[in-house]
Amino acid sequence: MKNLLIAQSGGPTAAINATVAGIVSRAYESKEVDRVLGALNGIEGVLEESFIDMREKIKSREDMDLLCQTPSAALGSCRLKLKDMKDANLQIEEIIQIFRKYEITYFIYIGGNDSMDTVDKLSAYLADHHINDITVVGAPKTIDNDLEEIDHCPGFGSAAKYIGTTFLELERDCHVYATKTVTIVEVMGRNTGWLTAAASLARVNGGRGPDLIYLCEIPFCNDRFIKDVEKQLRGNDSVLIAISEGIKYSDGQYVSEQVQSNFVDAFGHSYISGAARVLEDIIRNTIGCKVRSLALSLMQRCAGHIRSTIDIKESKLLGIKACECVLQGENGKMASLIRTSNFPYKIEITAIPVHQVCNHERRVPRSYINSEGNDITDEMMQYLFPLIQGEDLEIQYKNGIPRHLTLY
Amino acid sequence: MKNLLIAQSGGPTAAINATVAGIVSRAYESKEVDRVLGALNGIEGVLEESFIDMREKIKSREDMDLLCQTPSAALGSCRLKLKDMKDANLQIEEIIQIFRKYEITYFIYIGGNDSMDTVDKLSAYLADHHINDITVVGAPKTIDNDLEEIDHCPGFGSAAKYIGTTFLELERDCHVYATKTVTIVEVMGRNTGWLTAAASLARVNGGRGPDLIYLCEIPFCNDRFIKDVEKQLRGNDSVLIAISEGIKYSDGQYVSEQVQSNFVDAFGHSYISGAARVLEDIIRNTIGCKVRSLALSLMQRCAGHIRSTIDIKESKLLGIKACECVLQGENGKMASLIRTSNFPYKIEITAIPVHQVCNHERRVPRSYINSEGNDITDEMMQYLFPLIQGEDLEIQYKNGIPRHLTLY
Repeated sequence: MKNLLIAQSGGPTAAINATVAGIVSRAYESKEVDRVLGALNGIEGVLEESFIDMREKIKSREDMDLLCQTPSAALGSCRLKLKDMKDANLQIEEIIQIFRKYEITYFIYIGGNDSMDTVDKLSAYLADHHINDITVVGAPKTIDNDLEEIDHCPGFGSAAKYIGTTFLELERDCHVYATKTVTIVEVMGRNTGWLTAAASLARVNGGRGPDLIYLCEIPFCNDRFIKDVEKQLRGNDSVLIAISEGIKYSDGQYVSEQVQSNFVDAFGHSYISGAARVLEDIIRNTIGCKVRSLALSLMQRCAGHIRSTIDIKESKLLGIKACECVLQGENGKMASLIRTSNFPYKIEITAIPVHQVCNHERRVPRSYINSEGNDITDEMMQYLFPLIQGEDLEIQYKNGIPRHLTLY
Repeated sequence: MKNLLIAQSGGPTAAINATVAGIVSRAYESKEVDRVLGALNGIEGVLEESFIDMREKIKSREDMDLLCQTPSAALGSCRLKLKDMKDANLQIEEIIQIFRKYEITYFIYIGGNDSMDTVDKLSAYLADHHINDITVVGAPKTIDNDLEEIDHCPGFGSAAKYIGTTFLELERDCHVYATKTVTIVEVMGRNTGWLTAAASLARVNGGRGPDLIYLCEIPFCNDRFIKDVEKQLRGNDSVLIAISEGIKYSDGQYVSEQVQSNFVDAFGHSYISGAARVLEDIIRNTIGCKVRSLALSLMQRCAGHIRSTIDIKESKLLGIKACECVLQGENGKMASLIRTSNFPYKIEITAIPVHQVCNHERRVPRSYINSEGNDITDEMMQYLFPLIQGEDLEIQYKNGIPRHLTLY
């Protein structure tokens, strides 16, 4: 028996299940694959032998379509990172024993930075120990868009489309009153500002979009912020501002630090939120106009009802590629994509060594941010624009809400 | 010349411009109407003679369709309420002089409770002073769904569809980790829980939806809340909770009171937000599991990209009805709707005296809330279900984001 195992990890996206659909559809076509298993809750589910048979859950074209339009990880997720190398070996040996028990020849792990670290550790162990009959491959996903060696990450385009559309709608909403109002919107992004930059997509049809955009790549300065807002208020009644949740002062302190909850997740990342609230208070106490803050919070990563067709297609293609990589024994690879042309937008699906990706974080280049550090440049817009194209107008609704596929 | 003036007021919705489209399309057909004017920023724009010519802005079927899919008040809004009766008379006389100057025979004001008060005061003055050549009529809108004498308010259905869909997606997102987590979601509603109840629509296809729903109609009790959450956590890893922003303790104090910003809007309503954050702290300090709070904030009232077809159709029909009322001289009426059947869903468009509506607030009946006060009943579900039916699959996108029509 040669069985294929799939697992998902890290934060959910609206496109991660399209990658599962890509893997499953390719595996179903292959004579090299017997059972197709899904591990529940990522590598945790592997260690707990918590598996489901995908052929029992995804039987028809309709199931496949529904899986594609279901946001968030349908197989569940985890935040477990393999322990540092010495202990990791014990965990890896345990995982390999489980692979042997279930005759798992192929393992594909879908996730972001931390999940690619797991792929790297597992595949390196297999190589070091000359275990050639098990292949481990990564498939990328993250709304954060912070993976190296890939033009953009699956899931990002749909989140960007949600964010651009939401800023367009917020601009309409904020614009209605003829009173001076500042609205500060917090977008996800602990260390990288890609998602926040996507707020600028509200401008693609000529709208104003956000008046100011602050990414976490540029040290934040309260005084400059107040001056920026004052300047905007001179010309406009309503000022709409996008900020990354992870904006920091030049000394490295998070703006949100005074309100954050001290919660630390399993990867050791502190739980950041509340930067917009801090800035709301600053504007109230200095300028004194009407001011409010809001956060796009979990909605920006799970809004499956508004997704980019390009993103869903690419996510599926990367799943197919990851499946081909395991079938060809390309241990330690991650499916990736290269942009070969911007106008017209063209990509190539490829595969790269996962060690080039894991534990790195791709930050927004300085040239994508304007010199004042309060907006993006045309270069960023050219990068973002193709990623939100196409609407899922065939999304299936039932009883007035979208249909989803539940795997467990 | 017999000119028609339209203005919008109060909080924006995703459907309020469909009502403008209804009025305008009916007015264009009528030989009784010469110019069709729009006042910018509601009654404020009337007092400032800030008018636009609708025939110059809405020329084609395409413009009309775009107006319908544009969320938030395309003519702008205001929070101005006519002053108490003595001063109000001066303001009303000023308004009537402006009507005379611009030969305005017909005035339609689209709005909620406070806006209907303006319609009532204006129309009562006209009647009391036997001014028969000016007719003032109201057209309802409010996502809050709190108007009396109408089965449900235009704009509510689209907001309910957004909320139901978002809770469905949040449920997916919260479900992925196998760790005990409480997610508290704050929904708009200062005094009425209609919008919060719409979270239950996430269940219409068999999903769990929110595990607990607290409306502001039921006095909130911290101890009972903690017990409810503990009970849910015994059976589930992830607990999803919907609360109204305006939940209050039995002594009348808002739960949010310790964090609210003391901002008071022009209608004298205090600015409430932060109840979910208070409850987040309560759970953290008592149960101690992972807990987070978020708010659907402005997104729930301006998410034009996901609207209920029924809501948009009814909003347009109410605009047409309001226009017919002014043309027939039915001074002091508000266009309204009566539900004549639930299965199949049927409504009748009607008109009622606006004084029956203004300054009242329709709260959720006790029978729509379960006996424990932590969920809704089937009766509520039957009421809500028809209002979110139908998707705008023909919504026009351009460059990856929805197209909107800008009037000014």
